[in-house]
Amino acid sequence: MRVAVLGVGLIGGSIGLAAKSRLDAEVCGFDPDPEVIARATDSGALDAFADSAADAVAGADIVFCAAPVGALSALVAEALAATDDAAVTDVGSTKRDLIAGLPAEGAERFIGGHPLAGAETSGVENARAELFEGARWYLTPTERSSGVHYDRLQRLVADLGARPQAIDPEAHDRVMATVSHLPHVLANVLVQEAAFALTEESERLPEVGPSFRDTTRVAGANPGIWPDIFASNREAVAAEIDAVAARLGEAAALLRAGDADAVRDWHRSALEDRRRLLEGELVGGELHQLRVGVENRPGTVAEIALALGRAGVNIEDMALYPAADMRTGAISIWVAGQEEAKRAAEVVGRLGHSTSIADHGDEGK
Amino acid sequence: MRVAVLGVGLIGGSIGLAAKSRLDAEVCGFDPDPEVIARATDSGALDAFADSAADAVAGADIVFCAAPVGALSALVAEALAATDDAAVTDVGSTKRDLIAGLPAEGAERFIGGHPLAGAETSGVENARAELFEGARWYLTPTERSSGVHYDRLQRLVADLGARPQAIDPEAHDRVMATVSHLPHVLANVLVQEAAFALTEESERLPEVGPSFRDTTRVAGANPGIWPDIFASNREAVAAEIDAVAARLGEAAALLRAGDADAVRDWHRSALEDRRRLLEGELVGGELHQLRVGVENRPGTVAEIALALGRAGVNIEDMALYPAADMRTGAISIWVAGQEEAKRAAEVVGRLGHSTSIADHGDEGK
Repeated sequence: MRVAVLGVGLIGGSIGLAAKSRLDAEVCGFDPDPEVIARATDSGALDAFADSAADAVAGADIVFCAAPVGALSALVAEALAATDDAAVTDVGSTKRDLIAGLPAEGAERFIGGHPLAGAETSGVENARAELFEGARWYLTPTERSSGVHYDRLQRLVADLGARPQAIDPEAHDRVMATVSHLPHVLANVLVQEAAFALTEESERLPEVGPSFRDTTRVAGANPGIWPDIFASNREAVAAEIDAVAARLGEAAALLRAGDADAVRDWHRSALEDRRRLLEGELVGGELHQLRVGVENRPGTVAEIALALGRAGVNIEDMALYPAADMRTGAISIWVAGQEEAKRAAEVVGRLGHSTSIADHGDEGK
Repeated sequence: MRVAVLGVGLIGGSIGLAAKSRLDAEVCGFDPDPEVIARATDSGALDAFADSAADAVAGADIVFCAAPVGALSALVAEALAATDDAAVTDVGSTKRDLIAGLPAEGAERFIGGHPLAGAETSGVENARAELFEGARWYLTPTERSSGVHYDRLQRLVADLGARPQAIDPEAHDRVMATVSHLPHVLANVLVQEAAFALTEESERLPEVGPSFRDTTRVAGANPGIWPDIFASNREAVAAEIDAVAARLGEAAALLRAGDADAVRDWHRSALEDRRRLLEGELVGGELHQLRVGVENRPGTVAEIALALGRAGVNIEDMALYPAADMRTGAISIWVAGQEEAKRAAEVVGRLGHSTSIADHGDEGK
C-alpha cells in the first residue's frame, strides 16, 4: 500500500504515522514548507518526500489532500491529474464547493473526507498515530463516485482506527454549519454586540459570570483558518444564521408577551435538547456539575483534580472562573453519573472547599 | 448596626456572616423554609430569626431582600411598610420592574443592589464571609432616593468587602441583558436549532469540537431561576435579541457576498472585541491558550495542574474536551502573559504530552 500525503500538518502527519505503524504502508509527502518536511521526516511521519504534489502522488493507491480549505480545490485537481487509479480524498471541513469544482477527468476517483479529530492542536510536531482512534471520519461520495475507490478509502480510514461514515456532501456541510460553524458566528456576533452596547453605556465589561466567557470563547477563533471555512460553506452557514435569527425573533416575541409558563417551557426545552444532543456521547450516564468555591492560586486545581484522580473519579469537563479580586474563584467540574458526582463532592469537600451539585447546565444568576 | 436578611441562601447567608465578622453587626433573618433557618443559625450566619419578614426587620438599619427575583417586589414592599427609617435593598439580577413597582410610601428608602458574586454555588450551606471580597456590587439609586440611606447602604457594602458602584437602574438592566441574559438566550436558541436541524438530517450530534459545547453550556440553565430573570428584564433582553438578530442578518449577507477580506475583517474584529472586553480584568497580561493532547483517565488533569502549580503557573481558565473514543482528549489551559504560557508549555511538555500555544480564542476547525 502506497499513501501520499499532500500537506503535512497535524492531520497529514498523523495519517502518515498511523498508515506506517498500523498498515506498514509506504508514505510519501509533499508540503510547500521545507521546515515542515524536515520535521515530518524526522518524526517518522514520512518515508519519503517530493518537491511537488505531482511527484509525491506517483504510484500512490490513496492520496490525502490535507491543505487549508482555500487551497484544496487546486490541490485535488493536481492530484487527480497526476494519477491514473489513485483514490483521492481530502480532510477539509466543508465539501460542497470542493465537489462542485472537481475536474471532469478523474472526478469519479475523488471522495471527500472529514475526520473529526485534532481540534486541540496543530502542526506536524503534534501528530500522532493514535489521533484517529475511535474518531468519526465522514466520507462524502456522490453518484459519480467509483465504488472500488470508495471501498479502498473506507477500508484505509477504518484501518487508521477511525469510524468511517458516508454522508451526502450537502448534508455534511449543513450539519457542520449547524454544530460547528454557527456557534462561531454566534460567538462573534455576541462579542460585537456587547462591545457596542457597553461602549454606549460608557461601561467596561462588568465582572460577569461564566456565561459570557463560555458563550464567546470561540469568538474570532483562529483567524488563519476560519474566514476560509466560513467562505467555503457560506450558503449553509448563511441559511443556519437565517434560521437562528428567525428563532431569536420568536424568542423576543415570547419574552415580550410575558407568558411566564411559555417562557419556562421554552427554557426547559433547551435544557432537554442539549442533554439529548450531547449526552449520547458520554459513557457513565448523565453529566452532573459539581461547583466548588476555591482560592485562585497555583496548586488549587491540582489539589482538587489529584484528589479526584486518587478516588478514581473521571472529570468529563471542567471550567475555572476567577472572581473579581483574582484571589477567589469557582471551579465547575462535570462528572458522569449521579453517584460519581456525589462521591466527587465528598472528596472535594474533605479538602475544605465549599461544594454543591447542580443539574447539568445549571448556573447561578 | 442592625441588619435584617430576608431570604437566607448563599447571598443572604454570606451577608450575615460578613456583617457579623467584619462589622460586629446584629443580624436577624427570615426565610420561609424552616430548614434553611436552622442551617443558617447553626452556621452562625444569623444571631436571631423571626417568623415573618415584618418581625425580622424590626429595628433594622439596613434590610437585604435576598429572595428570588419573582418574589422581590412583594418582599420589598413588606420591608418598607414594616420600617420607618431602614435602608431597604435587594440582591436581584434586574432592577427596572422592581423600582417601577415600589409603593409610594417609603420608596425613597429603597436602593436596588446587585452583587456580582456567588454564581458558582447556592444555598446557605455554601455561604462564607469572604464571598464579596473585591466583588463589584451595583447600587441603583434613582432621583427619588434619599441621600442618607444611599450613603448608609454604600458604606455597608464597602465594609462587607465589595466595591460598590452606582448605576442607573435602566442602564444596569441593559448591561445585564447584554453580558448575562443574552448569552443564555443565544445558548438556548442554538441548541434548539441544532436539535431541529439534526433531526431533519436524521443525524445524531456528531462528535463535534469544543465550540458547540462551550457556546451552549448555559442552555436551559437553572430552570428554577432563569425564566423569572428573563421575565423581569424582558424589555431589555428583547431589545438585545433584536440587535443580535439584526447583526446576524448582516453576517449572513456578508458571507453570501463572498468578499473574503470583509469576512476576515469581521472575524478579526470579534477577536479584538473579546480581548478588549475580557482582558481588562486580568492581572499578568493577555491570555494565551495552551493546548494539550492527553489521555482521558483519572489523574491526567491532576498531574498537569499539579506540575503547573509546582512551577508557580496560575491557571486562569481551563476546559476539557474528551475525544470520541473517550480514551483520549484535549485540555485547553489559559494562562496570563506570553512568558508564563511558554513556561507552562515546557512544564506540560516534560510530562510527555503534546502541547501547542495558540492565540486567545484560537481553535482548530
